[in-house]
Order: sequence, then structure tokens, then C-alpha cells
Amino acid sequence: MDEQAAGLSSHRVELAEVSLHGSLTDPVVDSMNFLNEVMDRYPDAISFAPGAPYEGFFDSLDIARYIERYLAYLRDERGLDAARARRMLFQYGPSRGRINELVARALRVDEGIDVAPEAIVVTVGCQEALVLALRVLCASRADRVAVANPAYVGIAGAARLLDVRLVPVGEDADGIDLGRLAQSCVDARAANAAVRAVYVAPDFANPSGTRLGLAARHRLLDVAERHDLLVLEDTAYRFTAEDPLPSLKALDRTGRVVQLGTFAKVCMPGARVGYAVADQTLRAADGRRRLLADAIASAKSYLTVNTSPLSQAVIGGMLLEHGGSLRELSRAKAVWYRRSLRLLLDALGRHLGDPGTSPWPWNAPEGGFFVQLATPVPADGDLVEVSAREYGVLWTPMRDFYLDGTGANRIRLSCSYLTRPQIEEGVARLAGFLRDRCRPAAVTDRATPVPVVR
Amino acid sequence: MDEQAAGLSSHRVELAEVSLHGSLTDPVVDSMNFLNEVMDRYPDAISFAPGAPYEGFFDSLDIARYIERYLAYLRDERGLDAARARRMLFQYGPSRGRINELVARALRVDEGIDVAPEAIVVTVGCQEALVLALRVLCASRADRVAVANPAYVGIAGAARLLDVRLVPVGEDADGIDLGRLAQSCVDARAANAAVRAVYVAPDFANPSGTRLGLAARHRLLDVAERHDLLVLEDTAYRFTAEDPLPSLKALDRTGRVVQLGTFAKVCMPGARVGYAVADQTLRAADGRRRLLADAIASAKSYLTVNTSPLSQAVIGGMLLEHGGSLRELSRAKAVWYRRSLRLLLDALGRHLGDPGTSPWPWNAPEGGFFVQLATPVPADGDLVEVSAREYGVLWTPMRDFYLDGTGANRIRLSCSYLTRPQIEEGVARLAGFLRDRCRPAAVTDRATPVPVVR
Repeated sequence: MDEQAAGLSSHRVELAEVSLHGSLTDPVVDSMNFLNEVMDRYPDAISFAPGAPYEGFFDSLDIARYIERYLAYLRDERGLDAARARRMLFQYGPSRGRINELVARALRVDEGIDVAPEAIVVTVGCQEALVLALRVLCASRADRVAVANPAYVGIAGAARLLDVRLVPVGEDADGIDLGRLAQSCVDARAANAAVRAVYVAPDFANPSGTRLGLAARHRLLDVAERHDLLVLEDTAYRFTAEDPLPSLKALDRTGRVVQLGTFAKVCMPGARVGYAVADQTLRAADGRRRLLADAIASAKSYLTVNTSPLSQAVIGGMLLEHGGSLRELSRAKAVWYRRSLRLLLDALGRHLGDPGTSPWPWNAPEGGFFVQLATPVPADGDLVEVSAREYGVLWTPMRDFYLDGTGANRIRLSCSYLTRPQIEEGVARLAGFLRDRCRPAAVTDRATPVPVVR
Repeated sequence: MDEQAAGLSSHRVELAEVSLHGSLTDPVVDSMNFLNEVMDRYPDAISFAPGAPYEGFFDSLDIARYIERYLAYLRDERGLDAARARRMLFQYGPSRGRINELVARALRVDEGIDVAPEAIVVTVGCQEALVLALRVLCASRADRVAVANPAYVGIAGAARLLDVRLVPVGEDADGIDLGRLAQSCVDARAANAAVRAVYVAPDFANPSGTRLGLAARHRLLDVAERHDLLVLEDTAYRFTAEDPLPSLKALDRTGRVVQLGTFAKVCMPGARVGYAVADQTLRAADGRRRLLADAIASAKSYLTVNTSPLSQAVIGGMLLEHGGSLRELSRAKAVWYRRSLRLLLDALGRHLGDPGTSPWPWNAPEGGFFVQLATPVPADGDLVEVSAREYGVLWTPMRDFYLDGTGANRIRLSCSYLTRPQIEEGVARLAGFLRDRCRPAAVTDRATPVPVVR
């Protein structure tokens, strides 16, 4: 009767969420949405939450000029007919990408990495490169990927989407713990599984800000060789280094490293262009050989077909305007971000004392966008809300970055999105919040110990 | 000794393809690559293979103007500050999309489909929408998706990538066989599995060119309701209809239809913009409700983060230049493609006789890009090569579109990419090839019967 009264036409199917894929009920997505909501509700709060680039850089961007510059390159350097080159912007393109030769050139000039354009796949940001790498390398539930704990949300999300199991490996002030990584590989094998790859961002990881030293880079490659792993090297924040160490890919002598890069930070996120460098050899059952990049491009053809040639033209043009060098292209930005980071660290020192003995210890990365800070009380959504409402400052609780349920007492501070006066004022507000609401006295009430950040 | 002689530094890892994900050894990808190679080797051959848009449409495109038009809309209609609006082009954006309101408006104006902007997710082409829909709806190996056989390569590839099992359902001249679809659902249930959705392109499917009639559309929705399926409606070629039938989504009274669309054909492929309309309600275990689009947007945040806001601005601007109507935007193109299709069909008739009694019967779609033609001999890569080399004409063997190993004797002809003189000349060459190399006399040698196309 009720059903009839409601009318048949108003009957609409309702899907039980539990019947859908497990990746949909992801606490990290919920947390990010929550943070965005809090930011919307407190528009005057200063937010150390977003890891997005500083928008002041966008004002000088000129899309039409970059496209013209790229078209000129196609005509003058690649010998393409002008009409043909222009039409290529608008048509479908190869899954592998259109600007591979420019990316290869930049890697050679900037990083001493010598790979053929065919060994590169241009992707929809670094995120698609992550998804593709996981997809290609993991054939079954027994294939696992090791990651530093805390982990970048992008790798955690990609793994959830593909039902790939991650193996969290502890991190200290110098980055991923290589002894534990090796042990994870042994343990996996004992369980009839395999760690196929390890994902690392050796240069100022998100969220921890850690950097792998040169010796650790060599050791990581040794571990990879000994335990038959690939290394997925994410170089997103590498450009911010004042004294860059050689990238893992540049040190790689045995083809263990797949490098994943993005133009989001050095050019703009809005183009959604990244890349994977995958010059490994694949051997088919019939003995034929091809590149891992071929397999990644095949998989990409079923994920997004190809990366927008228009977006690729924009990025290609920006590269060309800087002599084909990513380092030149990013030089001024790197200086800006390093200054912002130094200001954040200085302000923390001025307001909170010595980072090592403060009740709120923090680390002091020399690059990247992020600083982590430990709090004596668990830092959760409720506390973010209090911080925004009463102190006008926002930050990211780090516990969602931990794959093993730890990390409840850490927060991530990002300096990338803010102006310097905002950073200065934001730290003053943060200090007030920490003193009032995250007092060490509360330590006795907590179950988890204060983590040593540095 | 050998190892030493070779030098340690030249030792490089080689990955066994068999240890990687199964989607990498995909015969369809191999076939597409092969077709592209053949096209490259015979540049003077006329190719009925590509389903890509006619490039003559690209010459009048003006990216900078579209972006300006979109920015004007953000300022004038949405009340955004000019600097803010411009910066949004270059920054990260919401996973759900930026031009959702414009897409919703077009669906309302053109199709009588009334959905909220939040129920739409803007994707990297229709392909990403397919991947996301499969990902969200299929939680385990028991969850299957029914497709017409022959199937669009995009749905087959997306399923392989995600290890989602497809259920092929036979197709006749009027499209997917609804009786068999219903039976597939019953069969799956008997095997403790579930057909969660059926993928259909009701308006001139790729590759078969079939169109579902109005009665069949209603029946399909009935089957979906009775067997608790969602319908994934792909509208890629809908714009070419001279007398459009209501879309499945427009007929949908119970929320069974998720519509997947693309701007690749009506605007340009190079922007890589498509969308999913998913206004279904999801009910969580705790009783909270949200939209299926929310879940799709969450999954997207881990696949490509967001669709390029720059690309979205280009598409948004093109829509706005045509009063917000996709139908207006595509009107001239629809006329062009219908004329090309008619020319292709006329030329086939002139060269090969009556389509029903010819040794090479073909169907006669009233829209879309594709015609299928049956050959008395198996049409494979070797025959494509002969056709290109000796007759200067290329086409697509259809057997890779069939999920059950049938279809060896069909070829797909696409008229979209060619000029009309090319179509005319191409059919003349094709007729020569068919007469010489695909003679009915060969029928007795074949194992498979000639399929009746119409």
C-alpha cells in the first residue's frame, strides 16, 4: 500500500555500498574531504594542509604561447608540416605520448639519465604512472609492493584501487629502513608471496619530508638487486633540492629503477602531465623482447587512451622556453619554495623553541613542501576543527598516512601554497593552538608515546 | 667467466613477461599496433581502419578563445573573481570535475535528462569513465559485466585491466539480444556470481553499427530492473542520429542507467574529456546515503586525481559558444558524418551490388562511424597486409572484437576519418580486393559459416 501510494515511478534503485568495490570506503578520501570542508567553513583560517603549488606562479602563464612554441619545435626541429603539426594537438595520439623526446632530453641534460624516448610513457600526472606501474608489475594477490610508512596517499590509493597489497616499511629520519625492507622481502617469500617493487620518493618524501642520503641510495639499489625488486622512484619534490644528490635512476646500473615524474609542481597541476621512465627489458615466453614502457603504454591505452596532446604541447612548450631543461624551468620556483620552507622552520623555532627539545618536536627537511611535527595528544579531525575554529589555523593529521594504524600524534605542515606573511602568521596561530590544546601535561593520558621526529 | 667477461656493469635485469599482469599480453593491443604499423608502411593506402574524427574539423578550433569564453562564464554567470577564475585553470581541481554544471545543462537542454551537477563526474575521456564504472561496481571475481558481442575494445580492455569478467551476449541486427542477456543473469546467479551491469552503446555501436529501437530500449530497462542490473549507456555516436530516439538515461525511471559520454567526437579527442552521469543512491552500512558519483569521484582521485581543468575549460568554452547545447555544437559534424556514411554505403552498393545478396553482405546503419561487412574468407592480419600492399586499402579485422573467438569473417569499415573522395576511391579499391582475394569460391575451404549481417 505504501509502495503504491509512493507511486511506482518514484521507486528508484538504491545500491548497498557494501556490495561495491572496497576502495570506495577509504578513510583517507573521507579525511581529505573533511579537510576540504573545514577549509570551506573557515575561509579565514590559514591552512598548512594543501600540498598544492603556490598560485602566484600561475599569473605569468601563457598557454597560447607555450602551444605556439611547441608547434614551432615540431616544424623546425622535427620537420613536421605546419598543418599536420597543428592537427596533432586535437586528435588522438600514441598511448606512449607525444613529448617523449623532450622529456628524454631533459632527463639527459638535467640528470645524466640516458634513455630512449620509447622508454618513456607520458601519463595523466604522476598518479596515473603509479597506477600503471602497480598494474603492470602485480599479476596476482601474491605480488606486493613495499612502501615507506608513512606512505604517500597516491600510492596507497592506487594500491586500493587495484587490490594490490602494500607492505609498509618503517621510516626513520633518513628515510625508509633498508634492513626492514630486505627483511620484508624475505618474509614475503617465506609466505609464498613476492615483493615486486618498492616505492620511494628519495628527495623529500610526502608526507615525512625525509631524504635518502647517497650511501642509502646505493644500498637501496643493492637491496633491490639482491631481492629482485624494482624501485619505483617518485621525483615530485626533487627540483627543490639546493644540492641535488644523484637520482636513483642516475645511479641505476642494472635497470632496477622505474622513475615516476610529474610536471605538476614545476609547470602546473592543471595540465595533468607526468611520466614513467621504464627502460627495462621484458622477455616474452617466445623469447621476444620489448620494453617495460611498451607494456605500460598498452595498459594506458585502456585506462585513459592517451595523455591530452594539448596538455603535452603546453608542457613541451614550457620546457622548450627553458632550453629543454626542467632544472632551468624550475629554478626560480625551487628558490621560492626553499625560502618558504626555511621561513616555516625559522618561525617554528622562534615560537616553539628548539625542535629537538620542544614538546612539539619537528623535523627540518632541506627541501620539499612538508614538515612533520609531533604532538603530545592525538591529532585527529576533531582537533583540526578546534584548531580552525578557535585559532584560525589548519594542518593535516598524519595518521591516515600510516598503513599500520600508528602516527596518531603527528601532523603535517605544508608551506607550498601559502605566501610568506601567511606562513609567519600561521605559525604564530599554530603555536597558540599547540600551547593551549596540545600541552605536554596531557601526555600521561595518552596510550601512544610521543614519537621522536628527529 | 662469461659473466665476468661481459662485465658486471652490463648485467641488467630482464623481466619475464609471464610474471607481469595478464592484461599486457592482449591480442587486441597487438592488433591495433599491427594496424598502425601497416598504415605507416603504406602511407598511400586509404584506411577505413581509424575510428578517429575527421581532422578537417580541427582547422577552425581556437583554444585561447574557448578558454576566454569559459573564463567569462565563470566571471559573469558564476560570480567568480577574474584572477581566481584564471588561477583555477592551472591548479588541481575537484576529482568530480569543474564543468559539471555545463554538462548537466547540456543534458537537460538536449536530452531532457535532469541530473544535479554533483551526479556527474568529468573524466579523462569516456575510457576513464568505463574503468571507473567497472571498478566501482565490481567488488570481487564473482561480479561480472555483460556486453554485446562483438564488444567495443575499450570495455574489453578496461575489464582486462581490472580483472573484471565480461559476459558476452550475442547481438543481432537490432543490437544486443535481450533474451540472452536475461538468461546470462540467471546463469550467473546459478553459478554464485552476479551480472552487476550491462554495457551498451544503443546508438550505432562500435564496432557493429547497430542501434537499439525504442521498444528494445524499454525492454532493456525492464531486464535491468528484473535482474537488478545497472545499464552502462555509452553515447559516443549518439550525436550522429538524424532522428534521435530517447537515450536510455532519458527513459530511465528507476535509476538503472549510468550514462557515459565523451566530447572526443563532438569537440576533439585531444582534450581527453568525457563524463559519467551516476545519480544512483548508495546506502552505506550505517544508513548514510550518497551518490554513486561520489564513489566514482573518490576512485578517480586515485586514478588521475582530476581531469585537466585546462581541458575542461576548452570543452566548457566550446559548449558555451553553442548556447550550452551539445546538439548545437555537433550539428554540422553530424550532417558531415551522415553524408560520409551514406556515401560509403552507396559506394559499396555501386561496387558490390545488393547488400543482402552480395557475397560480401554488409549492414546499413543510419548513423555512427562504422559499417560491418562479411567476407567469405577469414579476415586476419595477413589479409590486411595483402590489402594494403596490393590494393592500397586498409580496414579492421573484426575478430578481435569478439569475446568468444567468432567473427573471423567480418571486417569493420569506418568512414569518419576520410574525405569523401577518399571514401569513393577507397571503396573502389576495396571492391577490387574483395573480388580478387575474398571470393565466395573459397567458402568451401572455410570452417566458419558466412555470418548474416542483415
